[in-house]
Amino acid sequence: MIEIIKKKRNGVELSKEDFRFMIDGFVAGEIPDYQISAFLMAVYFKGMTENETAILTDVMMRSGDLIDLSEIEGIKVDKHSTGGVGDKTTLILAPLVAAAGVPVAKMSGRGLGHTGGTLDKLESIKGFSVDMSKEAFIENVKKYNIAVCGQNDNLVPADKKIYALRDVTGTVDNISLISSSIMSKKLACGADAIVVDIKVGEGAYMKTQEEAEDLAKMIIGIGSKMKRKVIAVISAMHEPLGLAVGNALEVKEAIDTLKGNGPADLNDLCLQLGGHLLVLGKVAKNQVEGTKKLEKLITSGAAFEKFKEMIKAQGGDLNVIDQPDLLPKTEFAQVFKSKKEGFISELNALDIGMASMKLGAGRATKDSKIDHGAGILLRKKIGDFVKKDEILATMFSNNQDGFEKAERLIDAAFKISKTKPRKNTLILKTIE
Amino acid sequence: MIEIIKKKRNGVELSKEDFRFMIDGFVAGEIPDYQISAFLMAVYFKGMTENETAILTDVMMRSGDLIDLSEIEGIKVDKHSTGGVGDKTTLILAPLVAAAGVPVAKMSGRGLGHTGGTLDKLESIKGFSVDMSKEAFIENVKKYNIAVCGQNDNLVPADKKIYALRDVTGTVDNISLISSSIMSKKLACGADAIVVDIKVGEGAYMKTQEEAEDLAKMIIGIGSKMKRKVIAVISAMHEPLGLAVGNALEVKEAIDTLKGNGPADLNDLCLQLGGHLLVLGKVAKNQVEGTKKLEKLITSGAAFEKFKEMIKAQGGDLNVIDQPDLLPKTEFAQVFKSKKEGFISELNALDIGMASMKLGAGRATKDSKIDHGAGILLRKKIGDFVKKDEILATMFSNNQDGFEKAERLIDAAFKISKTKPRKNTLILKTIE
Repeated sequence: MIEIIKKKRNGVELSKEDFRFMIDGFVAGEIPDYQISAFLMAVYFKGMTENETAILTDVMMRSGDLIDLSEIEGIKVDKHSTGGVGDKTTLILAPLVAAAGVPVAKMSGRGLGHTGGTLDKLESIKGFSVDMSKEAFIENVKKYNIAVCGQNDNLVPADKKIYALRDVTGTVDNISLISSSIMSKKLACGADAIVVDIKVGEGAYMKTQEEAEDLAKMIIGIGSKMKRKVIAVISAMHEPLGLAVGNALEVKEAIDTLKGNGPADLNDLCLQLGGHLLVLGKVAKNQVEGTKKLEKLITSGAAFEKFKEMIKAQGGDLNVIDQPDLLPKTEFAQVFKSKKEGFISELNALDIGMASMKLGAGRATKDSKIDHGAGILLRKKIGDFVKKDEILATMFSNNQDGFEKAERLIDAAFKISKTKPRKNTLILKTIE
Repeated sequence: MIEIIKKKRNGVELSKEDFRFMIDGFVAGEIPDYQISAFLMAVYFKGMTENETAILTDVMMRSGDLIDLSEIEGIKVDKHSTGGVGDKTTLILAPLVAAAGVPVAKMSGRGLGHTGGTLDKLESIKGFSVDMSKEAFIENVKKYNIAVCGQNDNLVPADKKIYALRDVTGTVDNISLISSSIMSKKLACGADAIVVDIKVGEGAYMKTQEEAEDLAKMIIGIGSKMKRKVIAVISAMHEPLGLAVGNALEVKEAIDTLKGNGPADLNDLCLQLGGHLLVLGKVAKNQVEGTKKLEKLITSGAAFEKFKEMIKAQGGDLNVIDQPDLLPKTEFAQVFKSKKEGFISELNALDIGMASMKLGAGRATKDSKIDHGAGILLRKKIGDFVKKDEILATMFSNNQDGFEKAERLIDAAFKISKTKPRKNTLILKTIE
């Protein structure tokens, strides 16, 4: 292992044997944390080639169980987002794409920190279960074209161990390490083709479009080396996606969007990403055609029906879907009013995410309990005009202690200016 | 700690508080190995300023016991070598300098790997004890101007922990880390002024003179910031120092040298380093004067008498000193003959050191037992002429199993050429 660290430190390309020795040894507990963390720091400074990153991805992917979806006919697509505040796209995209005839076998994770996980959001729905046997999961996809379940505990254990170490050793921000983490999980889940939504902005992993493009190219390169088609969409995260931040609030907004009444930015992003997924799933010739198909599935009600089908199949209470008022509510609510008049020129996503966490919607640590009803409902977004004392947002929580901190964060998030700001583009670039 | 790692990673200068938090936390077991190893790798790439290195040295020095030598009058000098094969200079320098009136309170370590420690060498002498109370140690220095004892277990624990980690994470080769390791120990031992012998060559830490000069400047800079005078001597290590490699064999050679019959290179190095020590100890105006004083102490027999005084004071059997044949011997000896005629053009020190270890003279691991009689006696050195079948070296061991491996290493160490090689300079540069 010392030799492997020194090779990387000196900028020598590592071999498949090096990565196997290192990752297998680390997962088996034979190689200690302190050697891996020194290696990760050397990677931070020396980087990894596309070839090394593809090998690492492959070795990591094989460190635990591999999900075999070959029983399911058709091209199994998957989608990954590098993490956004208010990002409930999976809740919308999965039924939308399934309704278009592309099988969606989705394994999701829980949230940590300010970004909620898809599982946490779905669990706002009474009765809905994400615990399924592998057989039931595959059976549901075969029957309904859709299933969403929790990730197997033994899915890519190498990533769990490496990520935990990166998090506490200042080695998160490296494109090869980020790419191998994302791709090893997606590929272990059995995806044939993947759309990756790379967020750029203040609160995102990627601070600049240049970094995001480098990440996109690396991920596409890994996919190509591993014979999987990948499309990367680079989208801006200057502000939260949609108006709702918090689990039940986001489910409600997803339902609205599936019924055609969603906020424009969220609706657009879903249709764009979905269009690509339809192309990958070979039910559309190009993205424009795919997006049009999806629009029709929304207006016809087929997308919403597919969502209901999935909820019912996994034990969820359909009354909640038909009457979203039955979703978890909080004991307390408090409005946040504008202190002056003008145009919203900034709305910091990270601040809103953190505020939502203070209200109980996120997990500070792995063992924190989520308050499903908690969160923030925005009334104004960038470009909107606001009068003095007009409501900018409403906060929901079962614990009044969080309001003060959340309020301070929301206050910091909003910038109000006299002139109307230029409209931001949501999708900055698509790379395939 | 994550913030400290990131600061170093991003090239931001660390503060005294950062180093204190990190080192105190690490020694207390509150900061895990994996964070320190990531930090060390970041230092490998980003380096440390002279100021940072001095602060780290100071914080490390204070991580354990500090030896207070203020009871002893005069300037207490110390000497450090970065490690050479056959380097028995301490055995000669300590009594030599003490005989000149400069107090030598020497705390030494044991050897690990192919370089033997001063303690191991001295323990070849029957009865000699390196275990002394602090009081007895200071008493002896007051009385005889000299004492050599083992290092306190709680001397710079930070260095012990950090070094162990550097060794297995590819982070040994960094000038700031090497400097702080050397200087924290010397200063914790109470030295007022220090001569550091920095070895350059194949088998040494420093491969090039440039690296050695950088290390010298860093060490002198730390000394200056900590108000201690340091002189750095850069010496070549193309071949072992002297002819003897192995504990008892080196004691015998040290005795010969103290009596004026030592090999030229060893004698020269001791006189040069000693000259500097006399200047630091303020009993010589300049190095030339110091060296002359020492030469006289050898010819007058005073240096050898001082050595005997020290041996006696610490329980050693003086018969052994007067009749070095009584030093530990080995059951087996085997000669190594030259396969051809010519001039010795290379004599790799590291190979000879490793060969000596195979014979039992060194410690492969911390718990290995040393065979005090084992080692190698060279007959020829670089520039010497050798005939075919003439003896190049004699190997000594109590275990015949080591001869084959040692022989192969000795064979690799010697290069014989037809033309006489240029004479190498032993002392390359002195920096103060």
